[in-house]
Amino acid sequence: MTSYWQDFPGIPEALERVSGIIRETSASDNPIISQGLAGLFDGQGKLLRPGLLLITAGFGKLQDKHYTLAACLEMLHMATLIHDDVIDESPTRRGQPAVHARYGNRNAVLMGDYLLSRCFLLASEYTSADNAVALARVISTICGMEIEQNSDRFRTNLSLRRYFRKIMGKSAMLFSLACHVGASEAKASRALTAQLRRVGYNIGMAFQIIDDILDYAGNPAAVRKPLGNDLKEGLITLPLICALRQEDASQNSAVTLRGIFSADHFSAEDSGTVIGLVRNSGGLKAARAYAEKYTARAIREILALPAGNPRDMLERLTRRLLVREA
Amino acid sequence: MTSYWQDFPGIPEALERVSGIIRETSASDNPIISQGLAGLFDGQGKLLRPGLLLITAGFGKLQDKHYTLAACLEMLHMATLIHDDVIDESPTRRGQPAVHARYGNRNAVLMGDYLLSRCFLLASEYTSADNAVALARVISTICGMEIEQNSDRFRTNLSLRRYFRKIMGKSAMLFSLACHVGASEAKASRALTAQLRRVGYNIGMAFQIIDDILDYAGNPAAVRKPLGNDLKEGLITLPLICALRQEDASQNSAVTLRGIFSADHFSAEDSGTVIGLVRNSGGLKAARAYAEKYTARAIREILALPAGNPRDMLERLTRRLLVREA
Repeated sequence: MTSYWQDFPGIPEALERVSGIIRETSASDNPIISQGLAGLFDGQGKLLRPGLLLITAGFGKLQDKHYTLAACLEMLHMATLIHDDVIDESPTRRGQPAVHARYGNRNAVLMGDYLLSRCFLLASEYTSADNAVALARVISTICGMEIEQNSDRFRTNLSLRRYFRKIMGKSAMLFSLACHVGASEAKASRALTAQLRRVGYNIGMAFQIIDDILDYAGNPAAVRKPLGNDLKEGLITLPLICALRQEDASQNSAVTLRGIFSADHFSAEDSGTVIGLVRNSGGLKAARAYAEKYTARAIREILALPAGNPRDMLERLTRRLLVREA
Repeated sequence: MTSYWQDFPGIPEALERVSGIIRETSASDNPIISQGLAGLFDGQGKLLRPGLLLITAGFGKLQDKHYTLAACLEMLHMATLIHDDVIDESPTRRGQPAVHARYGNRNAVLMGDYLLSRCFLLASEYTSADNAVALARVISTICGMEIEQNSDRFRTNLSLRRYFRKIMGKSAMLFSLACHVGASEAKASRALTAQLRRVGYNIGMAFQIIDDILDYAGNPAAVRKPLGNDLKEGLITLPLICALRQEDASQNSAVTLRGIFSADHFSAEDSGTVIGLVRNSGGLKAARAYAEKYTARAIREILALPAGNPRDMLERLTRRLLVREA
């Protein structure tokens, strides 16, 4: 975590404080909860959402409660990851055994619920009622979008529009909320807060697209999960959507994605073939162009913000996220 | 639901309103969420916790927000049931297929999360910050106790003390919260609110003990789940604890509970034998005596309350819960 933020003045120290709050809040008399959650917040995560919240707080007056709210967002994010790993049966997370792999599905579901409740506890204690409501709404939306995503598994006719709507709901909205909470609790003006919300949204869209690209083209050692993880679960993401569109337009290959997907289901071996076809098509490049588009939009919004250290940090973060390898 | 409350003046109508709020709040653009949750709130549940909240609101000034908060408690309760059914792999709930059996584990986990977030949304919108915090704390405690319960599975040396501590955390606290929220949001005095909290606690303890007895001695058609459900999951509850204590004291049977449990694990066939042994021992009677003790405590607290319709209803409900068959 620290190395990621080392050229962001003040942020590593602030995130240390956030990590302390997370440790305190997720502590429990129950040894399983304490151990299980301690392993999750051991400095392996980048704490992106808290970082974004703290940077945007710099557009107004940074307050004590910002640290708590940043902790709150990270705990919410972790709760969704724990539940995701249970339902996806992913054996690892950030190179470590997933919570359910260590403590069983039963405890993993409950630990996710515990974290969610601790996150709401912090929100009710420290944020304005409006922001507590906003937080609860974002969680509802994330769940709704994940359920929608489930019903879209293996649906290779997924439209671009539906894909973008989904990554907005399951990912970009949380980035947008981080910026909103950071700015609004720092008493930034309504206009400035709205502008920062848009920055968060665009960063979040680019972030998720890159995530989806890394599932096809990442270096497994850096990403710390196997390639094709989403694909094996039947998740149709942007690189594949773009590759399918290009294939439909050209139709000059013997082994085609459409051919593979014409079966009811594809197997684990197929996923290797699909990754190869997507890599060799222009799918990755086309997906990358979308990530660049959202990044450019974020940068445009950022450059219209008041000049200063927070603006510089936002710009640096946005550019760095576009070229990330993990 | 309506028939259960028919002799509680005003409560059936109030609960109709609560059901309407639940339907509205849990509605979603997402058809899976809408259908999945609609099936849960179809009038099959008794709405005990909302009922308790509405009765206790009668000790002060009943307000519009009471209906919303009652909905909130029921949604929280349902969220925990959905997650419980996923992790216990229970095929049915209230005689209907469980959510995970219809929509898969994936969607069931997410629907539980969705309901939790909707519950927090209502809490942040309608309750005092103090009560939103109390609600979040109760959820943390419930999760903590369920995790503790998991680590105690098949542990036949479970102490009475640990059992009571667990049912307090996983069950009685929610009844206590219902009374607390009902009274405090109705501006009842602090002393009266504390008294009602104790009433709720004692009702909740008796309720859970009866629940645990019904797993051994219930009529499956009335309970709408198979006998020995908890036992098969390795849950050691009061009837078994009492039966084990009596067996240890007498030791005059060839087939003993200790003998069965001396193995690392017991199988599904064993659970029939265990149920028989517990039924033939004084375990059920001893467990029932505890339920009666908590009921008597609740009644004592109730009779010290200001006389009137709310007090009469509390007394009637408490006595009815002791003799329930489902």
